Amino acid sequence: MGRLSELFEPETVGVIGATDREGAVGRAITANLREEFAGEVVPVNPSRDEVLGLECYPDATSAPPIDVAVVVVPPPAVVEAIREVAEAGTENVVVITAGFSETGSEGATRERQLREVAAEYDLNVVGPNSLGVMATDVGMNATFGPESARRGSISFMSQSGAFITAVLDWANEQGIGFQDVVSLGNKSVLDETDFVREWGEDPDTDVVIGYLEGIDDGDEFVEVAREVTDETPIVLVKSGRTDAGAQAASSHTGAIAGSERAYEAGLEQAGVIRANSVQELFDYARALSGLPQPESDGVAVVTNAGGPGVLTTDAVGDSSLGMADFTDETIDQLAEAMPEEANVYNPIDAIGDADVDRFGEAVEIALSDPHVGSAIVVSAPTAVLKYDKLAETVIEKREEFDKPVVTCLMGGDRARAAEEVLREFGIPNYFDPSRAVAGLDALARYRDVRERSVDDPERFDVDRERAREIVERAKERDDNRLGVESMDLLEAYGIPIPDGEIVDDPDRARAVAGSIEGDVVMKIVSPDISHKSDIGGVRVGVSDEDVYDAYEDVVARARNYQPDATILGVQVQEMLDLEASTETIVGMNRDPQFGPLLLFGLGGIFVEILEDTSVRVAPIGEGEARAMVDEIRAAPLLRGARGREPADVDAVVETVQRLSQLVTDFPAILELDVNPLVAGPDGVQAIDLRLTVDTEEL
Amino acid sequence: MGRLSELFEPETVGVIGATDREGAVGRAITANLREEFAGEVVPVNPSRDEVLGLECYPDATSAPPIDVAVVVVPPPAVVEAIREVAEAGTENVVVITAGFSETGSEGATRERQLREVAAEYDLNVVGPNSLGVMATDVGMNATFGPESARRGSISFMSQSGAFITAVLDWANEQGIGFQDVVSLGNKSVLDETDFVREWGEDPDTDVVIGYLEGIDDGDEFVEVAREVTDETPIVLVKSGRTDAGAQAASSHTGAIAGSERAYEAGLEQAGVIRANSVQELFDYARALSGLPQPESDGVAVVTNAGGPGVLTTDAVGDSSLGMADFTDETIDQLAEAMPEEANVYNPIDAIGDADVDRFGEAVEIALSDPHVGSAIVVSAPTAVLKYDKLAETVIEKREEFDKPVVTCLMGGDRARAAEEVLREFGIPNYFDPSRAVAGLDALARYRDVRERSVDDPERFDVDRERAREIVERAKERDDNRLGVESMDLLEAYGIPIPDGEIVDDPDRARAVAGSIEGDVVMKIVSPDISHKSDIGGVRVGVSDEDVYDAYEDVVARARNYQPDATILGVQVQEMLDLEASTETIVGMNRDPQFGPLLLFGLGGIFVEILEDTSVRVAPIGEGEARAMVDEIRAAPLLRGARGREPADVDAVVETVQRLSQLVTDFPAILELDVNPLVAGPDGVQAIDLRLTVDTEEL
Repeated sequence: MGRLSELFEPETVGVIGATDREGAVGRAITANLREEFAGEVVPVNPSRDEVLGLECYPDATSAPPIDVAVVVVPPPAVVEAIREVAEAGTENVVVITAGFSETGSEGATRERQLREVAAEYDLNVVGPNSLGVMATDVGMNATFGPESARRGSISFMSQSGAFITAVLDWANEQGIGFQDVVSLGNKSVLDETDFVREWGEDPDTDVVIGYLEGIDDGDEFVEVAREVTDETPIVLVKSGRTDAGAQAASSHTGAIAGSERAYEAGLEQAGVIRANSVQELFDYARALSGLPQPESDGVAVVTNAGGPGVLTTDAVGDSSLGMADFTDETIDQLAEAMPEEANVYNPIDAIGDADVDRFGEAVEIALSDPHVGSAIVVSAPTAVLKYDKLAETVIEKREEFDKPVVTCLMGGDRARAAEEVLREFGIPNYFDPSRAVAGLDALARYRDVRERSVDDPERFDVDRERAREIVERAKERDDNRLGVESMDLLEAYGIPIPDGEIVDDPDRARAVAGSIEGDVVMKIVSPDISHKSDIGGVRVGVSDEDVYDAYEDVVARARNYQPDATILGVQVQEMLDLEASTETIVGMNRDPQFGPLLLFGLGGIFVEILEDTSVRVAPIGEGEARAMVDEIRAAPLLRGARGREPADVDAVVETVQRLSQLVTDFPAILELDVNPLVAGPDGVQAIDLRLTVDTEEL
Repeated sequence: MGRLSELFEPETVGVIGATDREGAVGRAITANLREEFAGEVVPVNPSRDEVLGLECYPDATSAPPIDVAVVVVPPPAVVEAIREVAEAGTENVVVITAGFSETGSEGATRERQLREVAAEYDLNVVGPNSLGVMATDVGMNATFGPESARRGSISFMSQSGAFITAVLDWANEQGIGFQDVVSLGNKSVLDETDFVREWGEDPDTDVVIGYLEGIDDGDEFVEVAREVTDETPIVLVKSGRTDAGAQAASSHTGAIAGSERAYEAGLEQAGVIRANSVQELFDYARALSGLPQPESDGVAVVTNAGGPGVLTTDAVGDSSLGMADFTDETIDQLAEAMPEEANVYNPIDAIGDADVDRFGEAVEIALSDPHVGSAIVVSAPTAVLKYDKLAETVIEKREEFDKPVVTCLMGGDRARAAEEVLREFGIPNYFDPSRAVAGLDALARYRDVRERSVDDPERFDVDRERAREIVERAKERDDNRLGVESMDLLEAYGIPIPDGEIVDDPDRARAVAGSIEGDVVMKIVSPDISHKSDIGGVRVGVSDEDVYDAYEDVVARARNYQPDATILGVQVQEMLDLEASTETIVGMNRDPQFGPLLLFGLGGIFVEILEDTSVRVAPIGEGEARAMVDEIRAAPLLRGARGREPADVDAVVETVQRLSQLVTDFPAILELDVNPLVAGPDGVQAIDLRLTVDTEEL
């Protein structure tokens, strides 16, 4: 494949299927291109000599060399048209034509052929079913939309062409500019990951934004985005978040929506900032494209009005940021500079008669405070306050201190001119204090993304061969479910399990119990019986003399409950002190897009009723494993709340990592549940295990 | 007090302190009034003959009768000025002048005098420290702000004058109109409750909105607002929600902020819809002022673009509404009317080439579906879609079916003209699908407010006299804390308590234990010892023969722990089967603004760690008591989750109501905790009690 960057810096763009016909897409694209494109526009159409005044060529071979070919011929002609431009040397193709996989089996066949020709010639192909692409650097608008993007530093991809049309119309009015714009269409060849990678290397792209309905290869996306977000923020609207939305998305794109929980975890791990609406998308992007990240979370609020100051303070309280605690020096300086009635504590209320000079002084003193990481200037319109002058002062102070500053100059018309001046210097003005805070919050979140230490997953020394043998039992047994009889799988990966053994006769049971100190727990072992306790298949506190009878009893009960159940034996296990321990659950299921999704929670009601769980896409390192444990609401219970001895959280964290390694090592494990993993003051022990194995994969 | 409505329909407005002086507030107000006021403007100032071309009078006595007097004289002259206009017959006064309670003790004295003169003459007084008032019906702008409100049906009060200035400037640009506008100032005489009451009776006010930093008498506000919201929606921004915000509000207004939890409960019980930002305030108000409430929660989405359709569906999923499930008939009709590629399931995607006619058909078919309560029209700009015509069609269909419809015509400039047409017919157009859904959601929430059955608190037959005696023990004992020794207080209010007695010698303990079936629980009773278990002051499962020794033991341990502790005896209590029960907590503390705030939760970690509690302002009826129990996250545990027998939820609900009655009957009870209230399958029992009593109140 040629370098993708060439798609955005062509010297010639060919329109394959160009036409003069009113209302035709081939006309609209040619017209849009002709408007501002710095290079040459090459119409191709065998039945015309000229299109919109440009010389038209019968085919790609006879045309001048084409860097980017935009294909608008009817669906059945698309694949041949691509082959033709490829033969003539073109490496970048944008397929506008619809009527592919989104329309049924005939279209799906066409799309497969399209992929094949792309692979054969090693082409970059956007679409099919795309609105087109724009590159403002070279003035290229190769779309059939009604608007061209203004030049700027935001690069924008969208799985919905209409979303681009709607956004551009509004963005142009707001003065928001773009670097590159791509309508992804059916993502037959190039997808979101390709553009994220490309824009991550583009020095002219400050922020990548996107509207996506699905991510095809979540795993790869996370890997690429994680690297890109070290230097370039990514903000995404991923729709289909809710059940109804997912259904709508899948009927829109024909793709499987995937689990929202996996997207949430995957995008977070990738360092992507997620927006839930168009408004959030641009509120974040405007801050991220023009401002540095704050060095600390302390926010200073400077206002001329008490009410809006309080509202802003509330919004700061709702965010991940906090109101900066001014130093005594700051307070003294403010007290000297401000009138007596002013409030010199944060939020600074310079009161209603504050002019630009007083505002400027307050902003300067606030920004020089070491506790202040960022500032918001909030103002109500007054007779003495000139918004355009205020804008200049805010720009000056922002640059002097190199801390992020956003504004909320309230009011209608009178804020417009000031807004434009501010925008030019990268300072977003927001309608509402809460949105201004959201802008700063996005900066702080991106700072955290950049500073995160993505620790490489630790490779524990495990007995992988033994584990393989155990997993393969599923194939031997011709049953894809493994249970407590496979606990040695955990042992092979260094996860502690209680002393004990699975036995298949009562004498052996007695022998095992004799080798264990104290009473034992006995459980029926059968892949066919899931609620062992309910059928009397579990006995606790069995003394050595009762072991023989207990064996007979649990087996009898199991047979009685389900005569044809496969009974693998009876587990005789050391009895743990559960009083001083907390039951936790570590689980995994494999997401079609993102792969192994780990889940952690406390046992019983915490997972089942309170749904208090955390998830991550495996593999994960220690930092993320620890975050999984810390972020559940009930985490204080593990740390020793209510006078209990704290559990060995390090051991829990290590177990999560070891399971992460296990499920990464064995893609054949489809689902896994260690439930419970008992966490006590002196470590953890896995008490029960269930897994489902894809026997085809073995 | 004269009728408050007269404040908004004066024939004459006097400006006491009117002046020509540039930059003076007395000039700005006179100028604003002269602009559009339908009646007569009467400047009063002894040192001028004429102000802005109007005849000026030396005092109120010599002036024509003044319906509303706007006072702008210096602070020390305000009270005398009010007396003078009152003597001359004026009943409505707006005090613009600042320098009252917000500025220290001298100001506070002046404000007291102001209140006295208002009471003496039975005056309606707005302010002091107010921006003024507006009544668009009579063209009155009696403020010194730079903008006049456009005429409309929203009445607006604000505790921040700057908030009004900021909002009006923007609202005028957006074409949003108001009926009355009041800057509340220091709320010395008239407060939020007065205006809510007044606007509730005003046929020209469709929605009441407000910005408040505190509510002075929460109790009264709830009572009045509850009645008003039966007919007129109220939307409020109550700032100071967060700790930092509350601190900022209290430094802004000098008022105690009060507990956010109490505001949340009180406003909810009053039927107030709460907004957290200026944007939300108007997003809600715009829908509420022009549209009917939906009869059902099913939303139909009609769009010409898949992506925005999915986004809208997500937003519906996030709201209290749901996507309507179309009838087969609707699907058939849509299939017939739409092109083949269209999606005829909800969201309806009429696809990119949809013109106004096709949109209109889709909207009509959707609105005629009985499952559809409301609709959202979402569109991306296209060449074939004329937004102004689409607006007309949407208006027509909305009126034909009388169901609420909102729009999200995406794009910038091209949406403006359509927006104006829609607005005229009460249909708000929103920038973003999520905001459009929020508008519909506000309508549905208001429908629920109107339909709620605020059941009057049931008056249980209780032994109030006996309760009084028990509460008064606190005074006798000279200790405002009562504990388990006062459990008969609960009994007096019909709340079951276990068999038992508090005894003060071991023989009596033995006798009591003998009269109770089975083993007993014994607990030290002392107001000085709160963690009885920790010091060995509790013994469970005591058999009859051990009672004597157990008595001596717990007393000895208590003495040993704290030699000077007051020991009231030892409680000998029936032992309950806690295995089959769930521990709950019912508590109350008295909020300075709203009065008794009831709290419900499950015991132990649920309240302490998970903070899973519900609150209401007492008194409450059965419906709200039941909602308190139902809305905690752990509620399924009470209803018999995980194979347990369900607890007697009715008994829990009744206990909450009885406690509501108790704390309402006895304002002297400052705090109360029934912890635990054990709920089992056959009812509840209160096991322990603590209360704090205001002995002054007794």
